[in-house]
Amino acid sequence: MLPTAVRDYISAHDQDFIARLLTFLRFPSIANIAAASDGSDACIDCANWLQQQLASLGFDAAVVDNPGGKPNVIAHWHHHAHAPTVMLYGHYDVQPPEPLAPWLNPPFQPQIRDGNIYARGANDNKGQFFAHLMAVEAWLKGHGELPVNITIFAEGEEEIGSPQLETFIRTHAQLLQADICLISDSEFFAADCPSITYSLRGLAYIELTLTGARADAHSGIHGGALQNPINALACMIAGMHDANGAVTLEGFYDDVLPLDENERRAWQSLPFSLPDYAASLGVPCLSGGEHKYSVLERRWARPTLDCNGIIGGYTEAGSKTIIPASATAKISMRLVAHQDPARQVAAFRRYVETHTPAGFTADIQVFSTANPLFVDPDSPLIQAAARAYVTGFAKSPSLIRCGASIPVAETMQRLLKLQPVLMGLGLPDDNLHSPNEKFSLQQLRNGAVTIAAMLTEIADGTP
Amino acid sequence: MLPTAVRDYISAHDQDFIARLLTFLRFPSIANIAAASDGSDACIDCANWLQQQLASLGFDAAVVDNPGGKPNVIAHWHHHAHAPTVMLYGHYDVQPPEPLAPWLNPPFQPQIRDGNIYARGANDNKGQFFAHLMAVEAWLKGHGELPVNITIFAEGEEEIGSPQLETFIRTHAQLLQADICLISDSEFFAADCPSITYSLRGLAYIELTLTGARADAHSGIHGGALQNPINALACMIAGMHDANGAVTLEGFYDDVLPLDENERRAWQSLPFSLPDYAASLGVPCLSGGEHKYSVLERRWARPTLDCNGIIGGYTEAGSKTIIPASATAKISMRLVAHQDPARQVAAFRRYVETHTPAGFTADIQVFSTANPLFVDPDSPLIQAAARAYVTGFAKSPSLIRCGASIPVAETMQRLLKLQPVLMGLGLPDDNLHSPNEKFSLQQLRNGAVTIAAMLTEIADGTP
Repeated sequence: MLPTAVRDYISAHDQDFIARLLTFLRFPSIANIAAASDGSDACIDCANWLQQQLASLGFDAAVVDNPGGKPNVIAHWHHHAHAPTVMLYGHYDVQPPEPLAPWLNPPFQPQIRDGNIYARGANDNKGQFFAHLMAVEAWLKGHGELPVNITIFAEGEEEIGSPQLETFIRTHAQLLQADICLISDSEFFAADCPSITYSLRGLAYIELTLTGARADAHSGIHGGALQNPINALACMIAGMHDANGAVTLEGFYDDVLPLDENERRAWQSLPFSLPDYAASLGVPCLSGGEHKYSVLERRWARPTLDCNGIIGGYTEAGSKTIIPASATAKISMRLVAHQDPARQVAAFRRYVETHTPAGFTADIQVFSTANPLFVDPDSPLIQAAARAYVTGFAKSPSLIRCGASIPVAETMQRLLKLQPVLMGLGLPDDNLHSPNEKFSLQQLRNGAVTIAAMLTEIADGTP
Repeated sequence: MLPTAVRDYISAHDQDFIARLLTFLRFPSIANIAAASDGSDACIDCANWLQQQLASLGFDAAVVDNPGGKPNVIAHWHHHAHAPTVMLYGHYDVQPPEPLAPWLNPPFQPQIRDGNIYARGANDNKGQFFAHLMAVEAWLKGHGELPVNITIFAEGEEEIGSPQLETFIRTHAQLLQADICLISDSEFFAADCPSITYSLRGLAYIELTLTGARADAHSGIHGGALQNPINALACMIAGMHDANGAVTLEGFYDDVLPLDENERRAWQSLPFSLPDYAASLGVPCLSGGEHKYSVLERRWARPTLDCNGIIGGYTEAGSKTIIPASATAKISMRLVAHQDPARQVAAFRRYVETHTPAGFTADIQVFSTANPLFVDPDSPLIQAAARAYVTGFAKSPSLIRCGASIPVAETMQRLLKLQPVLMGLGLPDDNLHSPNEKFSLQQLRNGAVTIAAMLTEIADGTP
């Protein structure tokens, strides 16, 4: 049972919590250091700010160097001899804010409108993670102590696929030992539908560059003789799907865990409106992915291959008559249980080797990979989380999957043997990775209560 | 017979001519005003400089406003009552210099190395056009007068497809009346192979944008449901060619003038080495265009469709996991006699209408069109030009086609009934439209003699 004083503390300090979240959001802590808005200093500043927040609550908190990458913040409150240890994981880095034009307020100058905070990172992940910080503060200052041992782990490279995280966790395994890992980096299925996510997709992010001539060449003088890398790259990309929307890479679907009939039935009862979903994206229909599967199955239980970017030749305004020397595409695969990113990357390499047309050289860069996650939706810990949602949101949560990747959840499970629980607090229309990202203040408040309640559930001995 | 004094003047003033050509090249007179390096002021400065050069030679010279575009320079020397009038046409605008990294000297700070001038516009078209200015100066100052009436017409928007030229010519038809139009904006077939170009390809330059969602969307959360405009654009581009390299747009080849057997035979005797040509472009083979035609036929006598640029999604360094809202390709068709650009654009529109996948909207912008040019290679004027080349380069020229477009030639022929003669002075390795564009000083000198000799040939009554 969540102590009334904890819940009351959250209500009583609402304005102070919001003010501090706004401060958190003002750091342009972009993980991708080579992005247009360079966030390297802001990441360090943001990590230092988090450390100070946690130290002031009585945590043993440190900014821990992450050689070659952004620093991580680790904080401990380990004052119970026999209680379980719960890791609260979040990431303080954010996606690049581009394109800037559609933002109604500058992405790092947060603005509150209609009960929502608008900023890059408002939801993903500063806002959701801040609900955890509110929960521990409410326990400590409202109740006097935490009901379990807490390790807080705030990462700085989640949005670029956490390239150093495995090395970091292996190096700091002692500091990071815990029993359970709570992560709020996912979302409700709908505004009135609290949700626990028991499966995530993995990722393999690749850059493919096709090079033909030594330099850009005159498209009149050489057109018809000289091979065109944009046309050729387009053919290679087009060939990666068949007419039914299925990916053609050899063996691409070999390791896919088929959807359980119970899951399929449960999903059919979710409050999902295809027209509303399409309208939320501004499209008249949804024609991506494999035609023979339902939209939810395509998003949650089927792997995909999408181009995330493409560039080649002349891209300024107006015209320039060249056959460019090269063209580049960024291509990512979203992977489901039990696909292995390394095996999928190998299939991609084989496709490129066998489909690069005469007269071109192909170069492949693998930027990041992540394993998919799958946890048993019937486990006692998931049931405990469900009760915590009832305390925070007054409603039983649905058990859902999510198409996005939170590699750290699988990494924690694999390397530290933690039991991950994905307690998402976001809403589907929060514009993650997009302009005008937002987070609802009511989700923040109820989310903090939910996380605080989950600590009680764990303390009461569930796992 | 070219007076010795004219030829001597060209030799004697070599250093002065080169110095003035360097000045001409220092104007960053980029036609495409929306290009990265904005050239709008430089174009006006360059036109004024040309006007002053011509006025100082005794021409009645003016910078003529070209509403909505770059100004044109028109200059007259009409002092013979009964001689033919020859228009010397050139363009003072140049291609954008990007990409800048490969240039060995800044593109608008010309440098002479190994007998070549390196600069944007060194060949195309400032260098070649300057040979005309040298020829008229040598006649006027070396001989005292020109052997024919001369109209000089220097345009400022050739590199963006001369969008206003037809209107300008119709408005100023009186000022531009002449019998013959000499244009040096093409090239030798090889370094030791002077060439007269009797046919040019036309052009239709189009920008195609495919838009799906309202904004960039998270590729994990929505991937598999939301249609991807890069993948879709790639499919549309891929579908524009069949497996044999032929363009699939309906009726695309309907109006193509088949190659004459005499032309095919003549081309087989040209000094053309496929390996050398491939090596000049830095490719191991030439796989562009229709497989069933020879490389020269594909470049000169067959229409093409090439992507000149493509952009969509995230294109900075590193990764960003989005399904972009839109993707854009710049696509140009090179057209041959007797194709009509308007008809080809209509075929392109029909293709887009019938191939845009569900869930996308397609937007088409037509940036420029140009008719192909075809003149009789057996005409007396071409024979006169051939003799002029013998005077300038001591070698009979080959009669060739060129795959590039010089729309003005066809426009002059159609609107002003001028007979165009394409007396190219460039070399095939001059890097037109590319980094490190160059022009050979020896081509400049011999070219000036050739143009001076052509004026004699015309004065002697050939046409």
